[in-house]
Amino acid sequence: MKKTRPLILITNDDGISAPGLRALIAVMAEIGEIVVVAPDNPQSAMGHAITINSMLYLNKISKDSDPFLEYSCSGTPVDCVKLAVNEILKRKPDLCVSGVNHGSNSSINVIYSGTMSAAVEAGIEEIPAIGFSLLDYDWNANFETIKTFIRKISLEVLENGLPEGVVLNVNFPKLNEKDIKGIRICRQAKALWVEKFDKRKTPQGRDYYWLAGEFVNQDKGEDTDEWALENGYISVVPVQFDLTAHHAIQQLNTWKWNE
Amino acid sequence: MKKTRPLILITNDDGISAPGLRALIAVMAEIGEIVVVAPDNPQSAMGHAITINSMLYLNKISKDSDPFLEYSCSGTPVDCVKLAVNEILKRKPDLCVSGVNHGSNSSINVIYSGTMSAAVEAGIEEIPAIGFSLLDYDWNANFETIKTFIRKISLEVLENGLPEGVVLNVNFPKLNEKDIKGIRICRQAKALWVEKFDKRKTPQGRDYYWLAGEFVNQDKGEDTDEWALENGYISVVPVQFDLTAHHAIQQLNTWKWNE
Repeated sequence: MKKTRPLILITNDDGISAPGLRALIAVMAEIGEIVVVAPDNPQSAMGHAITINSMLYLNKISKDSDPFLEYSCSGTPVDCVKLAVNEILKRKPDLCVSGVNHGSNSSINVIYSGTMSAAVEAGIEEIPAIGFSLLDYDWNANFETIKTFIRKISLEVLENGLPEGVVLNVNFPKLNEKDIKGIRICRQAKALWVEKFDKRKTPQGRDYYWLAGEFVNQDKGEDTDEWALENGYISVVPVQFDLTAHHAIQQLNTWKWNE
Repeated sequence: MKKTRPLILITNDDGISAPGLRALIAVMAEIGEIVVVAPDNPQSAMGHAITINSMLYLNKISKDSDPFLEYSCSGTPVDCVKLAVNEILKRKPDLCVSGVNHGSNSSINVIYSGTMSAAVEAGIEEIPAIGFSLLDYDWNANFETIKTFIRKISLEVLENGLPEGVVLNVNFPKLNEKDIKGIRICRQAKALWVEKFDKRKTPQGRDYYWLAGEFVNQDKGEDTDEWALENGYISVVPVQFDLTAHHAIQQLNTWKWNE
């Protein structure tokens, strides 16, 4: 008896027309039945934002003769996942993949990333989920070199599932396929953005600001995603959405809270 | 010698005119030197979104004769913290407080919350930070009953600091002061939103959606924030921004990643 093909939800934060999304679609279409729901506009750095003070549009892009369903959505990446699960998909998908992001989501970037927040939302809804990002911000970045790895990682997750409450944050170095040394399971490096706002004036003379900034990695550990990427590896960080700092509970309990 | 008063940054996600922010300002003005930078519009559920594809305005609201600096900002709560730290404050603040949010940020809400994301951003920038939320969505909620506790918790943090990489998520039950049983250090309850989208039609006949949904707590533990709040306690959850699921690394390393 033929095994049912897995149902795979695909989204991103760079928007429905991003080449990174098209690369992900190409790989997933070989693996399973796919449904695409992605933002109609770039939603980079939207984090885990959802739309509650406004309404959402969902636009069917695919034609009936197309091999898969494709929608654009006026909301955030997390909105896309919620709408897909509740309004489009007939059953819970076997996998949700997000990306391929044009640019890094390693280290602290995971917290700002719309790509990763979509994967995290799927994880909250108990769907195995992976966010993929390539360390190349170019719109015309070469995604061909990483397709083999995307396929391999996705098949591993489909076969093994993921630990409860865990999604994967996968980042690819900007290298030729033959120069990639392999895949490493990592922790998130302790790094941050040191901001520099670019202060400008409107033609009418009013001040405004553009967020700029420099990524600073303070973490010299060789078990981090930053180390892996700098040394030619694909980084895979297991990401959780229980934000409790369990290690701090005992210490905080020594404080005089109720005196 | 008189000790320098602590410098306290105040923000929120309900916007500059929210009564919850005014309550927080009133308490903090008694404790230290305060600077307020809050969104010019409601930014609920914006998560850790930042503005990178557009510019930001910062509007000085306070007059020179006012006792403290106050700005509204066109961006998200996280933008407010970044702008405050980089463009307004002359030194790193001793404390950042966010809220008081009109409504709960317990359990999984921490991840969607603009209030908590502002606190987390301060934490990333190594500023001790606390997000405060009251379980009352009413714009005219009674914040008087919780002022004593806000003061106490803030003074504890100013005195003790916080463990590295940890900020506090404080939620208050909707109770009279005398009915609040005390403060409990908790973990984030395992809960989620089960969404129901409200599908409507524009006057022109186009479908649109409003996000609705029901909060479902699957977690019966008595060490959770949900349990504390249901039982008349103030919940304090230590929140971290290292999202690595450290417990999953060993298991993932048993997979055949590089074969």
